[in-house]
Amino acid sequence: MIRICIASKGDREGLARMFRQELPEAEVLTDPAATGDAPVPYIVVGRPDPGTIASVPGVEVVLSLNAGVEHLLASGEVPDGMPIVRMVDDGLARGMTEWVLAQVMAWHRNILHYHRIQPEARWAPERERLADERTICVLGAGALGTPAARALAALGFMTRVWSRSGGAVEGCEAFGAEALGEAVAGADVLVNLLPLTEATRDIVDAALLARLAPGAFFVNGARGAHVVDADLIAALDSGRLSCAALDVFRTEPLPKDDPLWRHPNVLVSPHVAAPTHPGPAVAEMAANIRRHQAGEPMHNVVDRAAGY
Amino acid sequence: MIRICIASKGDREGLARMFRQELPEAEVLTDPAATGDAPVPYIVVGRPDPGTIASVPGVEVVLSLNAGVEHLLASGEVPDGMPIVRMVDDGLARGMTEWVLAQVMAWHRNILHYHRIQPEARWAPERERLADERTICVLGAGALGTPAARALAALGFMTRVWSRSGGAVEGCEAFGAEALGEAVAGADVLVNLLPLTEATRDIVDAALLARLAPGAFFVNGARGAHVVDADLIAALDSGRLSCAALDVFRTEPLPKDDPLWRHPNVLVSPHVAAPTHPGPAVAEMAANIRRHQAGEPMHNVVDRAAGY
Repeated sequence: MIRICIASKGDREGLARMFRQELPEAEVLTDPAATGDAPVPYIVVGRPDPGTIASVPGVEVVLSLNAGVEHLLASGEVPDGMPIVRMVDDGLARGMTEWVLAQVMAWHRNILHYHRIQPEARWAPERERLADERTICVLGAGALGTPAARALAALGFMTRVWSRSGGAVEGCEAFGAEALGEAVAGADVLVNLLPLTEATRDIVDAALLARLAPGAFFVNGARGAHVVDADLIAALDSGRLSCAALDVFRTEPLPKDDPLWRHPNVLVSPHVAAPTHPGPAVAEMAANIRRHQAGEPMHNVVDRAAGY
Repeated sequence: MIRICIASKGDREGLARMFRQELPEAEVLTDPAATGDAPVPYIVVGRPDPGTIASVPGVEVVLSLNAGVEHLLASGEVPDGMPIVRMVDDGLARGMTEWVLAQVMAWHRNILHYHRIQPEARWAPERERLADERTICVLGAGALGTPAARALAALGFMTRVWSRSGGAVEGCEAFGAEALGEAVAGADVLVNLLPLTEATRDIVDAALLARLAPGAFFVNGARGAHVVDADLIAALDSGRLSCAALDVFRTEPLPKDDPLWRHPNVLVSPHVAAPTHPGPAVAEMAANIRRHQAGEPMHNVVDRAAGY
């Protein structure tokens, strides 16, 4: 008997129904405080409360509903050697790619600019550029960065990708760990899709932003802690950046009194770039459970040294 | 000696320099009132003042800088039998495709919605959809409609194309002349990229808009006269449409007192969707001049009966 405990916040019963459909042979539980004494090898979590994982007996694998698992690693709640599987589902990657394209295309074609001057009833065409006149640098070449960069390149943007490995992405120019400065130099758009690790925390700072083209656009779909907010605001105020679209923040929900809410050139969205779509997410987790049951290696197991 | 007269508004000298580079053997004139008596077989026009074409001696071919030539046909300034060549350059199609994608993606991912509620500092995620949950109908399968529809389909949208011929477009469902009602039924987005002819004037009216999905989005990159403005405004006011992005209008520039400027759910842009990019446009016209000189058929000659 496979036993699975859904310990995430939100609609546990909905997830449980999908699990029962994917794995009819499994017992699916939805209350981590009432699993009984029999071992529950699989626990599904988002951002669990302290003690939740330890309270469930016989956990072998932690299945994360999120792509980013830095909070699980930092919490110390997952014992050494217990595998954490991060969510890498097709819906997540598609959602992020679509959100990045929406932000980049809207800025590229001045949609908000025209919207802002519309109350003046002023007919004032800007010089419109074609995609191949813009250079975009994507930070990260993982499950999110790769499809986003590939889609931007397919639309005709001159696209660069920076990653630890410097691995190739179709249609893009690749830069490795040591070449961050070159990767961002003169870019019109900077898109952050990195995992959050000790190596990437605070990576978007004054020095990095100073290398972009004047009037550049910054898009953050990854984590708030990648960005030094004071440096970002200074770059917006100086005109180095014309605009920043931010979906993620150091504190979420973004506190009411945070100056980012009120900055005229910041677009705040409430962490909606890549919601986990339950259907594909459960299918992905069930496939990993089947692999583990069959003694095969699971996909997307977190490398704790790397942090993702 | 090939003689060409640039009779458009705007930077004639700039165009003349490019023509001299493309066709070094040609004499390129920039003042239609001072061409002398020698025949000038080629005239380049945008929206010429009355009498301009007749004032130039020996014109054989009218080269339009625009894709839409309904004003040239309606003016009666071009004698029967004189070929009009419309502008179909790669930059024009790319610009239009990028503008359509920008409008559709920004609406799809609620960019303006979040921007509008931002002053309230309200963290309020919408249910975000993936592209394959949206149905888009593109009106027109010509030089502009085809690449735009193909690009929308490539992003994952369920894409339908309606055209006179009903011809196939890669990745899309095709509808012919008689099937307009089916093509738009239940669509979440309607994109108009038709030529303006007697058959398409006023095509976007109350009856057509009533067939769209509730809360649909209308994008017009073609001509203002395709749309019955009063019906459009009524559909926005009733909620049938959630938003309309309009780049073209019956009168341009859009008059200061037009209600479209002030409608909260209309996005006005000043005819910037697909500007003619001089480089590719001159290359295209020069290629047609070479064809005509060699006795070969020119490309993109307007079919006067069809109107484009």
